[in-house]
Amino acid sequence: MASSGSRVVDIHTHMYPPAYVQLLESRQTIPLIRRFAGAKDPRYIILPAEAESLEKISQAGEAATATTQLPGRPVTSHYSSLQQKIHFMDTHKIDISVISLANPWLDFVAEAEAAETARSVNREFESMCLEHPGRLFFATLPLSAPAEELLAAIEFHCRGVILGTSGLGKGLDDKRLIPVFKALAKNGLMIFLHPHYGLPSEVWGPRATEEYGHVLSLALGFPLETTIAVARMYLAGVFDEVPDLKMLLAHSGGTLPFLAGRIESCIVHDGHLVREGKVGANRRTVWQVLKEQIYLDAVIYSEVGLKAAIDASGVDRLMFGTDHPFFPPLTSDEQGEWESMTWNKAAVEKALGEGSQGTLAVMGGNAIEVLRLKEDA
Amino acid sequence: MASSGSRVVDIHTHMYPPAYVQLLESRQTIPLIRRFAGAKDPRYIILPAEAESLEKISQAGEAATATTQLPGRPVTSHYSSLQQKIHFMDTHKIDISVISLANPWLDFVAEAEAAETARSVNREFESMCLEHPGRLFFATLPLSAPAEELLAAIEFHCRGVILGTSGLGKGLDDKRLIPVFKALAKNGLMIFLHPHYGLPSEVWGPRATEEYGHVLSLALGFPLETTIAVARMYLAGVFDEVPDLKMLLAHSGGTLPFLAGRIESCIVHDGHLVREGKVGANRRTVWQVLKEQIYLDAVIYSEVGLKAAIDASGVDRLMFGTDHPFFPPLTSDEQGEWESMTWNKAAVEKALGEGSQGTLAVMGGNAIEVLRLKEDA
Repeated sequence: MASSGSRVVDIHTHMYPPAYVQLLESRQTIPLIRRFAGAKDPRYIILPAEAESLEKISQAGEAATATTQLPGRPVTSHYSSLQQKIHFMDTHKIDISVISLANPWLDFVAEAEAAETARSVNREFESMCLEHPGRLFFATLPLSAPAEELLAAIEFHCRGVILGTSGLGKGLDDKRLIPVFKALAKNGLMIFLHPHYGLPSEVWGPRATEEYGHVLSLALGFPLETTIAVARMYLAGVFDEVPDLKMLLAHSGGTLPFLAGRIESCIVHDGHLVREGKVGANRRTVWQVLKEQIYLDAVIYSEVGLKAAIDASGVDRLMFGTDHPFFPPLTSDEQGEWESMTWNKAAVEKALGEGSQGTLAVMGGNAIEVLRLKEDA
Repeated sequence: MASSGSRVVDIHTHMYPPAYVQLLESRQTIPLIRRFAGAKDPRYIILPAEAESLEKISQAGEAATATTQLPGRPVTSHYSSLQQKIHFMDTHKIDISVISLANPWLDFVAEAEAAETARSVNREFESMCLEHPGRLFFATLPLSAPAEELLAAIEFHCRGVILGTSGLGKGLDDKRLIPVFKALAKNGLMIFLHPHYGLPSEVWGPRATEEYGHVLSLALGFPLETTIAVARMYLAGVFDEVPDLKMLLAHSGGTLPFLAGRIESCIVHDGHLVREGKVGANRRTVWQVLKEQIYLDAVIYSEVGLKAAIDASGVDRLMFGTDHPFFPPLTSDEQGEWESMTWNKAAVEKALGEGSQGTLAVMGGNAIEVLRLKEDA
């Protein structure tokens, strides 16, 4: 293993642990996992359109699946095999992975079962960490549970929680979440904010579904979902009300570093906010929150975007990630190098210089410091 | 006037010329302009929610307006007075304004009247240019008219056309627009792509309307609308089919410079696009199109965003703008300095150095070159 100064940490890397996969396999409505005879991998079905395809296949009988394009996406061994995660890490010289449950987390779990499901998922992650020391994780949270129960679901190796943008169904600017945010802040647990829902499909236009694959919804919808969620939290005053709250934003903040100037301009030029006295001298700007409470991953696939992220929140607040197991290579061996690693690493090295202090910090040093990874390794 | 090398050009500055205002005043459905007794300025009403407020006021009788918050936004003299535009230019040392009709242009005009309305609006702009030589403009286009009629609507002082994202109602990736784009390219007319519709209101959450003013829709919705439109054109192959097409993107490309890396990654990792053979060796990347066919305004209100825009498309492709008459100062005199000018100018000077070659280029030199403004001044 590399020396502590040059250790590589992947803070954006997901898993669907086996018990969670079983939960998805037991479901009749989306999200669900379905196995088809003759298909190598089960399929993960999450979109309404995919559910319709599944319905048609069920009606036609399973024999029809041989000639039908199967709905959803393949659940490869990369989704739930710890061995594959280790292989991916070894291939790409990643020392530590801060693993998190992938979307949609517990968003679909009934309130009564949320706490127990969270506990079970987190226990499963904990046992992975024990099996391979140094593989720390972001916990998943039963948001609908009381704060104590919520924290009780979190295991020793956890350093934060992964959270979608829906909260309790009304977004993260929902006042009911303030006690949750306060409990997390008090316990030094960072929130890893991650998108799942994107934007309503009509915004992509009539040609999108047939012709553009998933490009628009993943490349534009996901980052905007994150940006909207954090902008709503900012406008609702969450960062002022919970000044110790620390948030890590997926995909280098969605679009926040690039749009922060425009957000600031729209705030000071908004008649309603000015009349309501919300644009006073004491206001902490978006820029301040970016430098004081927000952390960004470096999953942006370009030097241009990465430099903007660094300019916005500081080189000490950026943390490397891969988004594994998503975006596997399509034209080369899945067991070899992934562009999710090579593009993002090259962006860091181009922006900050190969082997520089800044590069070492973004590639691992910052995560070790901020997430207290030394305590456990 | 400053020497040619340091002339300041505002390429993002709008007007609602008097005849267009009259057209809006004659309308019964949105968009419309309505005058209220006792109110200093008429109101510009464009949103469905504002139309409902208007309906209520009409039912209550005009006397009620004194105690009611009027719907929409005030149409100040800055919207349609050429004298105010000149005053704004003088105050901020702007030598040339490339003026364009403001949104929603002709999007609401019936097909049969579109060509004549375009001609009338463009004639009005032309006469402003004749009155104050050097004030060139982006024309407005009757998209539903045949290409010859469309070009006939354009006057001498025009250097391009301003275009919304809806096209003929199905977006700018609509194959029916290819002849329009070809005609514009052939005639050396740049497209100035500008947002108006934003995103569906449900994406802003339940607290937005009451509490966050217009911040989310203007700060996030507008830039994403532009990004979606240009990404759809890219995925539809428009830039390859019309290689001479030149597009100026409002607000520094929406979010394109920041997200270009993610778009590229989503393309090369998209199973559908790879299967369809759309990710071949000959593909021009988003980065190439950004450097070869796209120009960006510098209306981004921050050094962070501006640097990303420059990194993405090059310092020779950025052009200063103000977005006047929108975002007037709310806490200082409207006849004095506007932050839309000072923030954007400061961003350029911070990114490129005060008085540097790069700053001179972005502040005016690029626009003079690219839009051939010397020929007329």
